[in-house]
Amino acid sequence: MKIAQVTPLYEAVPPRLYGGTERVVAHLTDALVDLGHEVTLFASADAETRARLIPVRDQAIRLDPAPLKSDMAAHMTMLAEVLDRADDFDVIHFHTDIIQFPFFRDLADKTITTLHGRLDLKDLPEVYERWSEFGLVSISDDQRRPLPHANWKATVHHGMPGDLYRFSPKSQGYLAFLGRISPEKRPDRAIEIATRLNKPLKIAAKVDAADKAYWETVIKPMIDANPLIEFVGEIGDHQKSAFLGGAEALLFPIDWPEPFGLVMIEAMACGTPVVAFRCGSTPEIIEDGVTGFLVDTLDQAVIAAGQASALDREAIRARFDLRFSATVMARRYLDVYGDLLARRPFAVDMLGGRPPRIVDEDRSFAALG
Amino acid sequence: MKIAQVTPLYEAVPPRLYGGTERVVAHLTDALVDLGHEVTLFASADAETRARLIPVRDQAIRLDPAPLKSDMAAHMTMLAEVLDRADDFDVIHFHTDIIQFPFFRDLADKTITTLHGRLDLKDLPEVYERWSEFGLVSISDDQRRPLPHANWKATVHHGMPGDLYRFSPKSQGYLAFLGRISPEKRPDRAIEIATRLNKPLKIAAKVDAADKAYWETVIKPMIDANPLIEFVGEIGDHQKSAFLGGAEALLFPIDWPEPFGLVMIEAMACGTPVVAFRCGSTPEIIEDGVTGFLVDTLDQAVIAAGQASALDREAIRARFDLRFSATVMARRYLDVYGDLLARRPFAVDMLGGRPPRIVDEDRSFAALG
Repeated sequence: MKIAQVTPLYEAVPPRLYGGTERVVAHLTDALVDLGHEVTLFASADAETRARLIPVRDQAIRLDPAPLKSDMAAHMTMLAEVLDRADDFDVIHFHTDIIQFPFFRDLADKTITTLHGRLDLKDLPEVYERWSEFGLVSISDDQRRPLPHANWKATVHHGMPGDLYRFSPKSQGYLAFLGRISPEKRPDRAIEIATRLNKPLKIAAKVDAADKAYWETVIKPMIDANPLIEFVGEIGDHQKSAFLGGAEALLFPIDWPEPFGLVMIEAMACGTPVVAFRCGSTPEIIEDGVTGFLVDTLDQAVIAAGQASALDREAIRARFDLRFSATVMARRYLDVYGDLLARRPFAVDMLGGRPPRIVDEDRSFAALG
Repeated sequence: MKIAQVTPLYEAVPPRLYGGTERVVAHLTDALVDLGHEVTLFASADAETRARLIPVRDQAIRLDPAPLKSDMAAHMTMLAEVLDRADDFDVIHFHTDIIQFPFFRDLADKTITTLHGRLDLKDLPEVYERWSEFGLVSISDDQRRPLPHANWKATVHHGMPGDLYRFSPKSQGYLAFLGRISPEKRPDRAIEIATRLNKPLKIAAKVDAADKAYWETVIKPMIDANPLIEFVGEIGDHQKSAFLGGAEALLFPIDWPEPFGLVMIEAMACGTPVVAFRCGSTPEIIEDGVTGFLVDTLDQAVIAAGQASALDREAIRARFDLRFSATVMARRYLDVYGDLLARRPFAVDMLGGRPPRIVDEDRSFAALG
């Protein structure tokens, strides 16, 4: 199948540091290539991919040192480029939210759009109603909740290559928190859990400018007051295996409708169980009592984190391989693409612009006879 | 003429507090109505206008207390609404940067786009090249500098109603700075000028979150150290007449390519001269020695600010009325709209979808004879 992948341009594919969407696009694209498909990636030139790359910007936007840039303009240029080449593809898969809708109105039946963000935003319902011809993929069932009547085609959970994270058969006895320091990620709960268990907690996280005040006034004082809590700053991909693999459990005490939460499957790939608050996607990702625990209260979280070391780390890794590998994700998307092709009446684009010729002469003779 | 005005949705039309673009759209829209045209304004429902209002959001985005909103989605919904009604208009006038291009590709010759921002951004050239069929209006000639080959149709300076600001025949002997506290607006230069002249300076400005550090570490200490400097915070429209009218001169010591700078003509409306650094649009707006002074150095600025009280305040107001009234702006735009209509081969839309009938029978008989 000839597949175009169209990614946001904020981070490199895959991202150098933080960034979920572009990471998933990277894994999906490579997995589709490995499965024998002809994949074209529209992305910035710093992408590392096994697909054919069509570079539409010299580098990803966020880390580009240029003082003045327009993310809107960059994405418009990319989408115009995709549109120019639309005939080259059987399926065009967008990861760019909604901006492509006005460009591809006449080609909607050849596109699929994965929504990577939360959907409980004020202005979204009108857009998904107006451009309802565009088929959508959710990254968890829970993500759909604010827009139940949008044109959902499937839920496809994220996946990642099995060799990206090293399985770690034994933990080093600490709890881990990995993400952003922000109120809805609830690092305060993580600290409280560790404190009540009297267990060491390592926090690997970035502090965005928007969260500076929360860090300074709430979290930093909590860390300073407790020698069990260690703040290790933002870490890169190459450090994550060691960080997650060494943990007895990953604490994921979120307080917002997280649409997926990649870090949960990163931990599972290392064999590390996850203690997650029941919120957003977590009940779809964590199998309670197998790959971690789902909790509703801090008391439950403390008990769960204390029991996490009893879970079978090999079984956790096995569940990762079964449910969250990049290949599993790619196969699910191939089903979605297949549905799309099957529903296009004459699949004209696949046949070079001509409708299919019927050449079954035997059958027509039989009909005449 | 049937004219659609399409505004950004960030601020109300006109804005409650800060906000240049929506203010200009408000003035232009009302002035076009006053000149007898049938004007439709696409804006949020909190707009106050003499035109027909088509509300496309319940309120402007920036001050909307909803915690989660999508500016992209809001603008897409508005543009789809405009497109649905495109047949109702002779001219569609966009103030929304570039986002309308993919929607109106087939109707570009019926649109005009005023660019309100700076244009020296990395990703813009590709967009203006690719969508070069869209005619553009600059708000100063200088604004065009980074994109000299874009499809410029005219420069139209901003204007505002003459009765919005009260002419003040006499100053109260202080210097004024009005705008944002940000490094490129150079409030530090304003303080330095006042300090060297030993004259009081009043600063009316908002401090954006992004400029908090600059305010705390640079500007606030300068103000605290000098009793001649008074910080009055952010002021609303109704306070501006008194603030600007009482000033001996407005200091506009900018250090960036300001594409227009509304505050300069607000001061002129009050009869107050402007001491401006030669930068961006200032040489097009200030007439050196008449409505203020253009300077290149701090030494020149100090001399100019010392001489400003010698300029004729009535003459300054007269130049405002001649060059920067809302009616002057509206007439210039009507010229632009007229050019647009004249270039549309058969002006089919103005005639209800039919090409014009030729009924000059005398002339055809003469030709036959």
